[in-house]
Amino acid sequence: MVRGAMKWYGWGGELDHFDPEGRPYLWPFAQKHLAISEHQARTLPVPLDSITLPHRRENPLFLSCIAEIFPPSRWSIDDFDRLTHAYGKSTRDLWRIRHGRVDFSPDCVVYPRSESEVCQLLAAADEHGVIVIPFGGGTNVAGCLEMRRPDSRMVCSVDMRGMNRVLSIDPVSRIARVEAGILGPDLEEALATHGLMVGHVPDSFPHSTLGGWVASRSAGMFSDGYGNIEDMVVSMRVATPRGFIRTLDVPHASSGPDANGICIGSEGTLGIITEVTVEVREIQRCREFHGYLFPTFDQGIDAIRQCRSSGHAPILSRLNDAKRTQLSAAFRRRGSVVHNIAAALMKSYIGARGFDAASASLLICAYEGENRAAIMSQRRPCERIFRSHGAINLGRSPGESFAKGKFDFPFIRDFLMDYDVICDVNETATTWSRLKPLYNALSEALDCALRSEERPSWFGCHISHTYHAGAMLYFSYAFRCKSVGATCNMEAELAHYLAVKRAVPDCISSHGATLSHHHAVGYEHLPWLSAESIVGRGTVIDAIKSNIDPNGIMNPGKLMSGFALEDWFSEPNAREIDSSR
Amino acid sequence: MVRGAMKWYGWGGELDHFDPEGRPYLWPFAQKHLAISEHQARTLPVPLDSITLPHRRENPLFLSCIAEIFPPSRWSIDDFDRLTHAYGKSTRDLWRIRHGRVDFSPDCVVYPRSESEVCQLLAAADEHGVIVIPFGGGTNVAGCLEMRRPDSRMVCSVDMRGMNRVLSIDPVSRIARVEAGILGPDLEEALATHGLMVGHVPDSFPHSTLGGWVASRSAGMFSDGYGNIEDMVVSMRVATPRGFIRTLDVPHASSGPDANGICIGSEGTLGIITEVTVEVREIQRCREFHGYLFPTFDQGIDAIRQCRSSGHAPILSRLNDAKRTQLSAAFRRRGSVVHNIAAALMKSYIGARGFDAASASLLICAYEGENRAAIMSQRRPCERIFRSHGAINLGRSPGESFAKGKFDFPFIRDFLMDYDVICDVNETATTWSRLKPLYNALSEALDCALRSEERPSWFGCHISHTYHAGAMLYFSYAFRCKSVGATCNMEAELAHYLAVKRAVPDCISSHGATLSHHHAVGYEHLPWLSAESIVGRGTVIDAIKSNIDPNGIMNPGKLMSGFALEDWFSEPNAREIDSSR
Repeated sequence: MVRGAMKWYGWGGELDHFDPEGRPYLWPFAQKHLAISEHQARTLPVPLDSITLPHRRENPLFLSCIAEIFPPSRWSIDDFDRLTHAYGKSTRDLWRIRHGRVDFSPDCVVYPRSESEVCQLLAAADEHGVIVIPFGGGTNVAGCLEMRRPDSRMVCSVDMRGMNRVLSIDPVSRIARVEAGILGPDLEEALATHGLMVGHVPDSFPHSTLGGWVASRSAGMFSDGYGNIEDMVVSMRVATPRGFIRTLDVPHASSGPDANGICIGSEGTLGIITEVTVEVREIQRCREFHGYLFPTFDQGIDAIRQCRSSGHAPILSRLNDAKRTQLSAAFRRRGSVVHNIAAALMKSYIGARGFDAASASLLICAYEGENRAAIMSQRRPCERIFRSHGAINLGRSPGESFAKGKFDFPFIRDFLMDYDVICDVNETATTWSRLKPLYNALSEALDCALRSEERPSWFGCHISHTYHAGAMLYFSYAFRCKSVGATCNMEAELAHYLAVKRAVPDCISSHGATLSHHHAVGYEHLPWLSAESIVGRGTVIDAIKSNIDPNGIMNPGKLMSGFALEDWFSEPNAREIDSSR
Repeated sequence: MVRGAMKWYGWGGELDHFDPEGRPYLWPFAQKHLAISEHQARTLPVPLDSITLPHRRENPLFLSCIAEIFPPSRWSIDDFDRLTHAYGKSTRDLWRIRHGRVDFSPDCVVYPRSESEVCQLLAAADEHGVIVIPFGGGTNVAGCLEMRRPDSRMVCSVDMRGMNRVLSIDPVSRIARVEAGILGPDLEEALATHGLMVGHVPDSFPHSTLGGWVASRSAGMFSDGYGNIEDMVVSMRVATPRGFIRTLDVPHASSGPDANGICIGSEGTLGIITEVTVEVREIQRCREFHGYLFPTFDQGIDAIRQCRSSGHAPILSRLNDAKRTQLSAAFRRRGSVVHNIAAALMKSYIGARGFDAASASLLICAYEGENRAAIMSQRRPCERIFRSHGAINLGRSPGESFAKGKFDFPFIRDFLMDYDVICDVNETATTWSRLKPLYNALSEALDCALRSEERPSWFGCHISHTYHAGAMLYFSYAFRCKSVGATCNMEAELAHYLAVKRAVPDCISSHGATLSHHHAVGYEHLPWLSAESIVGRGTVIDAIKSNIDPNGIMNPGKLMSGFALEDWFSEPNAREIDSSR
């Protein structure tokens, strides 16, 4: 088992799952909004042995190269390896795999341990016409790992998790050179022995890799304080079919266009990221999470915008809209008697202040510093701003329960699927002046799409990344299938899901916002890419690929122009269709 | 006369020049180091009418398009227009033009006022095989505007200064959409009426344009506080021969590689930047400059590094090495009696503290805030760090005299050339751990190169941009010609200059630092580019150009691989050689 590997049918390790125990408000909330009950029968994933993978292609010349490059323990054509490298963890991926449908899988998987092995692999693949798909932690939710179009070539998945060493640390320059396959926890653990950290903490942190973060232009929960992954990358090495992309360890240069910026977000289409030099920083002794309640989401938005423009932004500002606030409340754990009394008192105080539960919005902030005084000097100006926008200080407990559960969220999707509920998320970013109109438009679009057929449903939104010019909007939504359990029509529900899902980028595009703030493009957002950044007559990748990857072996079909909505909707078994030709 | 235009033979407007009056320590310093005296005869630039431009090429079909696109007042084939768009303002440019040598000039100049005109121009140029060189303020010092290789095609310079409108301001998102040809002062003036500013202030500020800053990946003096130009760009529009490069106004996206990052620093090789949306910020009420003296440059470096890592960096930290400190002292103006007494007292105090004038290093810092209290809260932690590294607080006067003279520095080069002194600068950036070794190596390389023939010479260094992982090093150097006045051998002195100049990138390259921190590549740094960022087997521009500019009409020969040191050294009149074929 590869370290950090997730279960084949869902999120997290084999023993990790969401536990509703001790959350007394959860089931009433689920019953009310999604019409599911803890007593109903659960629909579990199909057994592993019932899954049939697409026909496995074989390129004998390539396989003989592989056998020369890698020892037998580090390459595989086994079905289980093929299955665990077939998909990422998008809702579409999980829904299909749980129902036993695997439309695509690579034909072989290799596990390199060195840059030299990666280079030899790419040379062999380029020579023998084999497709290469880099694989980090497999946590991607945008379909970055799946080939959607028929292609007769053999496909090789390159699992990078064996390249996981911290190669060097320069404490004076506060940078570390690291192999790209390292998992989040391993990276932070290795740095912590030097009192250092990176501080990039996406929700996928326990299972995702540095290379994956870079390839997908990822953002971590503390990005307001530490920046996104592109702000942390100093230099990198990317093995491509035509030599390396390699940049220098310099803090700023005016020596032409930014080569790092081309690789960051390239989603495996240019090459395999082998090494990244990242900025590191001293571990701060104190970190505190605090909660605040605003009368309305709009007032919360105004407050976090003012924090940002005044230069006082906390390292995390996570503002929930009213519905997301209600969800957070439904998820809270049973407290002690004292806690419950305090909560009741707070509730009556909030009522007395005239807060309306239908509009109240919860903000969680994180502050960090050497000591409490440093934290106070951050908190004080922020809280002054929050108060001026009508907020009540809820103290540390809502923040602490958020911090405790921060990696739990992705498990809920699996949990809900057990009850025939499909749930997904969509995030975007726009400027401050467009944020409220876009929020309203997306809310309306989602509401309309979810209500189009009679299924119980819910959606809500939060903001958790702010910038000088704007912020992110993150929508979560769920609906219960029309019929459940054995009678559930998997295809019909998928079609409804896609109709809902499609409404979001349609709306985002028409508002000039980005298709994805930090989940990458994959194929899930690809049909709308032409409305986003345009380089001449295509995409950045169109413009660069003929030079770096002339044979188109690197994760083909991604980030390219010309991927239409039909490709997105249709669910052909691309590999099978092609193999029958 | 185009607004912001500089004199044809040097830096600044026709009436602007460096005035040595009132600087009693200047001439003794110049005498001592460069063996020049205020009483010697000055060598002035040749008269304008003595200059012969290279043969003017004509592409009649293109010219007839031009005449259709532009009214007669906005295109020109006149020699004066051709001359003023021939070079930038590098030392090599000034030295040649002062001596009447113009190796290259465009064949026509156009002055567009709209994006539509730019698009029509590019279409005509692409159709008729005409080279296009975008022209901002013409302040570039790396040879970005000159074609160094023979090419039989007609060349059209596109002077963008007519596209200078602020198109819209969004005060909520704190962004402004601006035409790329706007000059620094005009941009800040237009924003100031809204209480806003950009805050990008390179030394060329009075004469350079927003588009030029972006095309050359520029850094302003307050970059420690506000970031470099790439940090301020939200979105842009670039007209290319194959359609627009266009990005969205979003604060962060994970929708593929960064298209802005490809255009920033593209030096006119991809297209013409027509519009840029930049971040703007509230004008701060207070700004203060303060001076500090460190016993040594090394101690100063440690102090500014600690400031940066502690999160307390001022918006400007300009640290001079010992020789640059002595130069600053030589430039100071005659003060009042009181001022002189204070200075004498300070001098004796400094002596009493055991400072050695041969090693003492001056640091100028700028702090900014809403009020003095805000400034104090910045200053206090910085000054604590400075003191812990042995610094003496010199109060506000050294900082204020720096602030007063901040745009004067480029004029000194012209002033010195009047006395047959060639002076130039080279800047680079590296990580903190490599900064002192690189400083030592570059000092040695320059010292060695300057002393290789017996000319009086001087060099010094300062640091004025700091980052998480490292900082910039900025070397200034000067030497007096072997023989002066009428006997000066212009070619021999140029050859010596090039031998000195070359020593710097040779050394930079071998130390893994960047060729340029903020002056761009042009042709002056091009032979060393292959040691810097590599994309597959070439440069970023190599990789992208065939798609965006397949006919190679956009500023050809720049940022491409394959430009050898011979091309750099040789001084052929490229246009004439070719026209004689």
